[in-house]
Order: sequence, then structure tokens, then C-alpha cells
Amino acid sequence: MTMGSTADAALAAEVQARLDGKAKPPGALGRIEALALQLALIQATAAPTADKALLLLCAGDHGLTQAGVSSYPASVTQAMVATLLAGRATANAFARAVGAEVLVVDAGVDADLAAHPQLVDAKVGRGTHNALLQPAMSAAQARQALERGAALARDQLATGGFDVLLLGEMGIGNSASAALLMHRLAPAPLADCIGVGAGHDAEGLARKVAALQAAAQRSAVTAPLEVLAEFGGFEIAMMAGAVLGAAEARRPVIVDGFIGSAAALVAVRLEPAAADYLIFSHRSAERGHARMLDTLGAEPLLDLSLRLGEGTGALLALPLVRAAARLLTDVASLDEVLEGRL
Amino acid sequence: MTMGSTADAALAAEVQARLDGKAKPPGALGRIEALALQLALIQATAAPTADKALLLLCAGDHGLTQAGVSSYPASVTQAMVATLLAGRATANAFARAVGAEVLVVDAGVDADLAAHPQLVDAKVGRGTHNALLQPAMSAAQARQALERGAALARDQLATGGFDVLLLGEMGIGNSASAALLMHRLAPAPLADCIGVGAGHDAEGLARKVAALQAAAQRSAVTAPLEVLAEFGGFEIAMMAGAVLGAAEARRPVIVDGFIGSAAALVAVRLEPAAADYLIFSHRSAERGHARMLDTLGAEPLLDLSLRLGEGTGALLALPLVRAAARLLTDVASLDEVLEGRL
Repeated sequence: MTMGSTADAALAAEVQARLDGKAKPPGALGRIEALALQLALIQATAAPTADKALLLLCAGDHGLTQAGVSSYPASVTQAMVATLLAGRATANAFARAVGAEVLVVDAGVDADLAAHPQLVDAKVGRGTHNALLQPAMSAAQARQALERGAALARDQLATGGFDVLLLGEMGIGNSASAALLMHRLAPAPLADCIGVGAGHDAEGLARKVAALQAAAQRSAVTAPLEVLAEFGGFEIAMMAGAVLGAAEARRPVIVDGFIGSAAALVAVRLEPAAADYLIFSHRSAERGHARMLDTLGAEPLLDLSLRLGEGTGALLALPLVRAAARLLTDVASLDEVLEGRL
Repeated sequence: MTMGSTADAALAAEVQARLDGKAKPPGALGRIEALALQLALIQATAAPTADKALLLLCAGDHGLTQAGVSSYPASVTQAMVATLLAGRATANAFARAVGAEVLVVDAGVDADLAAHPQLVDAKVGRGTHNALLQPAMSAAQARQALERGAALARDQLATGGFDVLLLGEMGIGNSASAALLMHRLAPAPLADCIGVGAGHDAEGLARKVAALQAAAQRSAVTAPLEVLAEFGGFEIAMMAGAVLGAAEARRPVIVDGFIGSAAALVAVRLEPAAADYLIFSHRSAERGHARMLDTLGAEPLLDLSLRLGEGTGALLALPLVRAAARLLTDVASLDEVLEGRL
């Protein structure tokens, strides 16, 4: 990977002066102004754009579901991929609402999926192994998923001329995998990382906690790539790779909720400079997300008690990113207004 | 005005069942689900739409500026109207970012404005009187502004086939007028209603506080129409009327920040049922807004430290409203997914 920080003192000063000189009281657009500056630094221009946006929605299955970590059967992953490809999942609806393209990536669904124009076959394996009993994937698979994700992001961004990448996921059991990744990479006490995911009663949650405690005790690894192989999911690894690929291409990545943030955490632990390229969309209702955001130094844009995934929160934040770009490109300066040069 | 509550137990039950039956964990979309329900009740259908949106941006001048309540000269109102009509204000930029039409309404600018396709001449007067010395407007003018605003909203919504109305404003001095309206109509201690508006140093703020205290002491009125005449602005009155007109037409109104919320407060005090039709977009950085939102029982969608006005916060919330509508209309039910009927 070749990726640098976005730091550029001269450009930052120029952009800040432009923001302060716009036809509005200085700072009156609050966090949108900070977002405009971040966007400019990522794209290395005082005139950033966020019009064309792509949601890469990575899907994968998890061996951990065999340990009863989810209240939904593993087959729901495949059913929801079919729903996404039919354009009838929430991510499709929200993508239509905000104007974004959606591409579903088979990172590791435990089924043979029929070809579809909106489906990318990047399958690393038919679901991960049960991390309660053995590593979820081999080190080679972890590297393969990362590299495939990075290449996918680079290629799709270039081919489609996209300004912004959004990442989403579908994978029954993946909040369990994300909890283990957070536990080891934040690091944070495991209990603080586990929530109800797609939904659990007290008994289900207790089962999830017990399973993840057993999985965590099985291995003491702490190095990012080893943690990813031990506890990760194919879709999470591919999202982490996509973060790195987008950063290399100097494109912002809008991160979704708990699982997306776990992928971002993997990426940042592998390449700290990747943090500059991340825009955190929302604070999820999933327990653990607030602490994960703190770990990442992230202040998300939205707080709407979402806990779906699929990139739905990232999609809802996209218009804010577009507004930030247009603040820099479309709004007159106060001088232009006062001198009648409109 | 003929306006009822949006309450409809049968429709509410039907919509809630649809939301719970969508292909997602129940409640997983948090506040977007509550928004979908509100939208359905407003439009009286389980399949609401929010595609076509109109921002009515009402402009007016304020006699209170003669008392030094603003750090900007009153002439900036006219300059910003010209900027809006040139498509180069922040509201235009954000409207482009989210896809909304903008119409500027001259509710009471202190200047003769040249005709323009995006300008509606609804001028009630050339700025209000100085409320420090006399009522800002006559009772007849207050009624005229309300009625004109209601008619404008009704006509524009019908003619343009708009699904959603957004309200914004431009008027140097109008945070002072809004503070007085809030003080009397919330009601709330005046000191809790006054903030820096477009920007003030400590000295400027002290001047604003002193002027508004003197204005408040001049009249003890508490009836909504009288308070509006005594302390209001033409653009605020017209926005209040537009709320009532949109509610009559059963269209949701997205409310912007502090001044927009003051207009909403006037509307709700005149017609309590209007509250059902209001969607509060954001919590402004302006002091007083949090308490005003509490008074209105409102929990805004966004919290981005905005304090510009122009409807910019309302525009940023529009995509959330569209997503809520599409959740109801576009997303498959879990039954459809599990039975393969996509």
C-alpha cells in the first residue's frame, strides 16, 4: 500500500480562509465546515466533489453462527443478498433516496450465487470457520480479502469516476466477529464490545457473551492481521481492504455502524494514515459502538438510533458530505456579495 | 383555517405493522421509523412520498436593527436576497446537494426588488417598525402576512406537486425578533431566549439584551396574534402562515433553526394541531433553541452546530425524510424475502 496522511498546511490554510470568507458568519455551518476541510484535504483540492457515490456492500457468512451468536439463521445472509440484488432492501431504498449506486460484493457467502450485474464475485471462502473452535480464516485468506477489497475499491472508484466510497455489510453473525475484533484491537474489555446485534433477548445475549468469551480465550493474538484471521469475517476484511484502496486513491470513505467501524479499526491498525480518509456517519444503537468511536477519535455526523447495517447510516450521511463539498465550490464569498460580483 | 390533527389509529396501526414486518429487525431504523409513521399520518397514506421538495425562503427587514441588535448592517438582507437569486448562497448550494427547489419570498425587505423568476413579491411592508419604540407591525399586517404565507404554501404545493415544504429565512435582526416571540409565547425568561445570532462580541450581546429588555417592557401582550404584531417580523409571520397552509394541504413542513422554530411556535399557538405536521431538522448552536425545542416537544433530527438559517438545516434533513418515505414504499417485507417473492 502507498498511502500518506492528508496533512497539507498550505491547502488547509487556503481552504479555511475560503470557508471563513464565504457569505455567512464565520463558523456558522458548524460541522459541515470541518467536513468541507477534511474533504478538501482528502481530495487534495480546494474544490472537492461528492456527487458520484458508490456503496460497496460486502456480504459474508460466519462460522460463529454455529455457536448461536445470532438470533437469525445464517441462511438470512443469502436471502438478504437476493433482496439487495432485487433492489428491495433498505440499502437500496436509501440509495434511491439520496442518489448513490450500490454494488453487492460476495466476499464469502456460504452459497453459490448466480451472476447478476450488481454482484461482484470476490468470494474468499464459503463462510468463515467457527472462531469458537479454530481461526475464522487462514492468514493467506485474510491477506487475500484485504487485497481484493483494496483492488475492488481502487478499480471501481476509477472506472465509475466515483468521488466518494461508502461501505456497508450483510452477514448474519458479524456483530459477534466485530466485537472480538474490537476487543483485541481497540483494545477493550470483551463485555463492553458485545451487544444485541440484530436482536437478542437476555438468554440469547448470554449465549453470545459465553461463546465470544470462549473464542477470545482460545487465542491471545494482538497483531492486526493475526486478529483479523483469528476472529474476522470475509466481508469485514474486504471492507478494511476497501478503506485502504480508497485512501490510496484519495477518496473519502463513509463508514457505517458497528461492523463498518470494526473494519475501519482493522484498516487503521494496519495503516494509521487511513484514519484521515474516514468519515463516520452515525452513532449506532449497538452497544460498543460509542466506545469504538472514541477509540477511533471519531465524532459521527448522525445519531438516529440506527442498528441495521447494510450501509444505511452511511447513505444517510452522504448528503451532508455533498453539502460540505458544495459549500466550497458553489457559495459566493462575502466580498463578491458586498461588491455585487455575483 | 381548516386543519385537523393527523391522528388516525387505524392507519397508525397499519403503518406500524408494515414497519415491523419489513426485511430488517424490528425498530432497527430507529428515528427513521418514527419519521416514516409521522409522514404517513400527515399524508394520510401508508405509502408517503417526499421526492419533490420546495424551500420557501422568506426575507424581511427589522426595525429592531436600528437599536443595534445585529452585528451586520440591515442592508445585508437585500444583498443576501440578491445572492440567493443568483444561486450563490449556502441555501442554493445545499438545495443542489439534496435536490430541492428554492423560491425566495419578499415578505418585507426594505428595498424595491427587481422581478425575478425565483422571487415571489409578497411584501407586506418595507421592514417592520422598531419594536423598541412601537409595535413592529399592525394587527392587520400580521394577519395579512399569515394569510399570504398560508395561501403561498397552499398554492405552491398544489401547483408544483410538491410532497414536502421546507421553510427558511433571511433577515438581519430576526434572531432578536424570534427571541421576543419565544419569550412571550413559550413563555420563557427573556435572558434564556437571546443568543449571538449571526455573531456578537460580549459588548454587542449586551446591547442586544438591553434593547430586547426595553422592547419587552413596552408591551405585556401574550395572545399569539398580538405578540406577533408587537414583536414579529414579516418573514416570520409569513413562515408561520406557510406552516398553517401546508398543514391544511396535509404536507409535512421541515422546520429550520431558531427563527424557523419561532415561526413554528407562532403557528402552533394559533393552531395547536399544526404541531403534527412539523419535522424539526436540527438543534441550532443559537442559545435559546434547545429550550424552544423542548417547549415544542421537538426532538430534532440533526445536531451539527449550525447557526446560519436560510433553511440550510432543513435542507440537510430532507434526505432523512425521503429515506423514511422509501422505507415504507420500497422495502420488501420479511415474508416476501423468506418466501422468495421479490
